[in-house]
Amino acid sequence: MKIISENKSFDGWVKRCEHQSASLGCTMVFAIYLPPIAAEKSVPVLYWLSGLTCTDENFMQKANAQRVAAELGIAIVCPDTSPRGTNLPGEHDTYDFGSGAGFYLNATQAPWSKHYNMYDYIVDELPALVSANFPVTDKVSISGHSMGGHGALTMALKNPGKYQSVSAFAPICNPTSCALGERVFTSYLGEDRDSWAQYDATLLVEQGCEKLPMLIDQGETDEFLKELLKPERLQAACEKTNYPLTLRMHAGYDHSYFFVASFIEDHLRYHDKALKGEDKQAYY
Amino acid sequence: MKIISENKSFDGWVKRCEHQSASLGCTMVFAIYLPPIAAEKSVPVLYWLSGLTCTDENFMQKANAQRVAAELGIAIVCPDTSPRGTNLPGEHDTYDFGSGAGFYLNATQAPWSKHYNMYDYIVDELPALVSANFPVTDKVSISGHSMGGHGALTMALKNPGKYQSVSAFAPICNPTSCALGERVFTSYLGEDRDSWAQYDATLLVEQGCEKLPMLIDQGETDEFLKELLKPERLQAACEKTNYPLTLRMHAGYDHSYFFVASFIEDHLRYHDKALKGEDKQAYY
Repeated sequence: MKIISENKSFDGWVKRCEHQSASLGCTMVFAIYLPPIAAEKSVPVLYWLSGLTCTDENFMQKANAQRVAAELGIAIVCPDTSPRGTNLPGEHDTYDFGSGAGFYLNATQAPWSKHYNMYDYIVDELPALVSANFPVTDKVSISGHSMGGHGALTMALKNPGKYQSVSAFAPICNPTSCALGERVFTSYLGEDRDSWAQYDATLLVEQGCEKLPMLIDQGETDEFLKELLKPERLQAACEKTNYPLTLRMHAGYDHSYFFVASFIEDHLRYHDKALKGEDKQAYY
Repeated sequence: MKIISENKSFDGWVKRCEHQSASLGCTMVFAIYLPPIAAEKSVPVLYWLSGLTCTDENFMQKANAQRVAAELGIAIVCPDTSPRGTNLPGEHDTYDFGSGAGFYLNATQAPWSKHYNMYDYIVDELPALVSANFPVTDKVSISGHSMGGHGALTMALKNPGKYQSVSAFAPICNPTSCALGERVFTSYLGEDRDSWAQYDATLLVEQGCEKLPMLIDQGETDEFLKELLKPERLQAACEKTNYPLTLRMHAGYDHSYFFVASFIEDHLRYHDKALKGEDKQAYY
């Protein structure tokens, strides 16, 4: 692993790191924010999964999470959103499939299955790499935006005990029920819809799973709300199974990082409580 | 003037506006942040001048000034950094001259003088446009980064009484003494160095001017510190003329927006005091 840039930020450091990924079969870059206290002791980690077209840079530059992460003593890790440099046929043709759009799953269909294993990368490989190279504890939480919100929710639901808390901004809540999800899952996972359910937060909640508290913020004027995100489906599944979801709808807010930046402080404080073991039961 | 986008941010609004500029002879875009209280009453304005290669978007997306501006009830206006769409010969060849590099002056040399009048645009035209279209008071302060710090300092020094306060991040303090400044000023202003002094903060302070309190933050590991920025020259001029400068050097910080974001809250609170008439005398 090689550090390719370092920027001081709120007395801590944003570091971009390059490494060869075994699960993805390519060179990857991720970013980590180390709060000031990490110079003295190990700190818990929040994984942030970004949305379509993003890299490791968007969240670090635009969410301004560092101010509160510095205060709370939480590291933040921002992975990229897909394998890079693989140049598979058609990989770069659209913004919502292929590069920049790994959808945080393990692909089973050729040619994608050789590289598109973002699920394994985020759940296993990257945390091991981070633990080996930075002063972090084994306390880990996860959050994300849009496609990354889908990733955060499904990874938390599929891995009981691994994450202390989960949250999301404008997540794709029920990808198997929208046109984009159907198209992408067919390409990555094949025609068998049964194989899709493990990557759909609404279906995972319906099937029953660990009841980790879940905080979701959603803008009411988000341009993707009705066709793509569908939080009402996840909400219905949570009500049916008594899953502890806090879904906050925000009038006037859209899908942009202006929305994420406006509420990231709430999410960091929510994760901080869980990471410090103070409150795993509920947000409010 | 046409609003081309609106994003809710910390209960206020980031609006990007397009208009035909008389002083620049082209179509321009600027951004304004209106804090929540602007829905009820007029608010003071901070003008933010960005650095080389930036547009109206960088500061709004990366500095996260909106959180504190919302709390304090200050509007922020972010202009672009040069005329656009004029396609003069060689205008787009380098990042440090021409488009994205207007240097906040009025050019006197052909072909630049027809369009490159960013000084008039920022000092007169844009404030009139903002006042005519948004709920703002006549209280105005100014700040900026790098080339924009140079712009903010020189505009404040040249216009006694116009601005309530001035600050800068890593400003180009003495452009007539560095290679880039000499090259750019020669192209925009001609060979006569006497005409350059009005756009050099160090020389303006040396010549004597209104003593508006000035706050400057500078990273100690800024890659442009020694060759381009030269705060020690401005500091010496201020000591000689008893000018009230607060220059804060920050160990480990570089020239990036991670640096700006880390200290923007201090600048907003400094400007807020001056805009509300509480303290025009000193920062500390």
